[in-house]
Amino acid sequence: MVVESYVVVHNIAKRHNVGTLARSATAFGVSELILVGRRDFNSFGSHGSTSHLRFRHFHSLIEARSFLKEEDCDICGVEITDGAVAVNEHPFKRSTAFLLGNEGTGLSAKECEICDFFVYIPHYGGGTASLNVTIAASIVLHHFGVWAGFSERIRDGNKFVVAEKPVKQAGRNFSAESVEALVEERKSRRANGCSVLDDATNGNPTENVLDSLFVDDE
Amino acid sequence: MVVESYVVVHNIAKRHNVGTLARSATAFGVSELILVGRRDFNSFGSHGSTSHLRFRHFHSLIEARSFLKEEDCDICGVEITDGAVAVNEHPFKRSTAFLLGNEGTGLSAKECEICDFFVYIPHYGGGTASLNVTIAASIVLHHFGVWAGFSERIRDGNKFVVAEKPVKQAGRNFSAESVEALVEERKSRRANGCSVLDDATNGNPTENVLDSLFVDDE
Repeated sequence: MVVESYVVVHNIAKRHNVGTLARSATAFGVSELILVGRRDFNSFGSHGSTSHLRFRHFHSLIEARSFLKEEDCDICGVEITDGAVAVNEHPFKRSTAFLLGNEGTGLSAKECEICDFFVYIPHYGGGTASLNVTIAASIVLHHFGVWAGFSERIRDGNKFVVAEKPVKQAGRNFSAESVEALVEERKSRRANGCSVLDDATNGNPTENVLDSLFVDDE
Repeated sequence: MVVESYVVVHNIAKRHNVGTLARSATAFGVSELILVGRRDFNSFGSHGSTSHLRFRHFHSLIEARSFLKEEDCDICGVEITDGAVAVNEHPFKRSTAFLLGNEGTGLSAKECEICDFFVYIPHYGGGTASLNVTIAASIVLHHFGVWAGFSERIRDGNKFVVAEKPVKQAGRNFSAESVEALVEERKSRRANGCSVLDDATNGNPTENVLDSLFVDDE
């Protein structure tokens, strides 16, 4: 059985979080980062790893769920709910998409509805009610990789070897609006109601649409 | 055997990282955050959890090591070295202090010298050479808590219950300089060459010296 992991991001607000999340996602072998709902990504931080990650966009959670179910994927909410299992117990069975909530409020009732099960990260001290969302996601993705037995990336000295950047299209500087238009156009051409964003820019070795979307302003 | 964890921070540069680190440290039951070397903490982000964490400062790594050895503590470098063990294999034996390197360069030769062993976090994808330092630290501290069998924090709904803030001293607004002076003064009064910073401010329910040191400027 080939097992894959996905991250589903729905209305995460802070630029810094999505950039760091992308970095961890590439480290832990995530296949795709799926963006649902709002698309104002131009204020997020890129941190340079977005060109190594496949992104996909859906307008609704229901559409995202349909896609994931066609991929034979469980949907796992990362949330401290009553029935949630501690992530270190590895309650995984197959390819899994991890749904992350908004930083302030966690997963909404609507978000919880599309989840097959939930994991949480045990706390041992009383200094904080929850973890930073990218830290929680990173711990979960790490555990999934351990459970799945993903092959470890080769190293060179004290660093993991970074793959060459995928070849991209020549220097277009997308705005969020132009990407939105692009996505809408492609959506109309596709039956499955989704768009793989990063294949829009084949041919440019230095940047892709996501490098423009995830502007690092720090 | 009572087992404790410590985090040792040596010259970490980015405010955001130390603030988030403090939040994770409190979540994972860390006993103390030990700051070594440079003390320019006034530009770091607090994120509100610093008042739940004990901080200690040393001027040198050797002093920090002496203190930790008196506490019968192993020192574990978080670094991708040849002899490093994957953290999910839980190579722990007793109380452990985790030494984190600078964001850009990782652990220096001098820092590696005081370590008893090393752990690293396996990568499965080629998008990044390393993880964000606070994410790496959080994954390691999580695993140590699982290994140690720390008691899980109680919850209320979808949040862990935050402890009441320790009672602190009335509204002093320390600058980094005044804290330095305070530390020097106390250092001269103590035999073990270290200072617990946060007990300087007993009596104030709203802030402590660390809330002033870790100014959140975002």
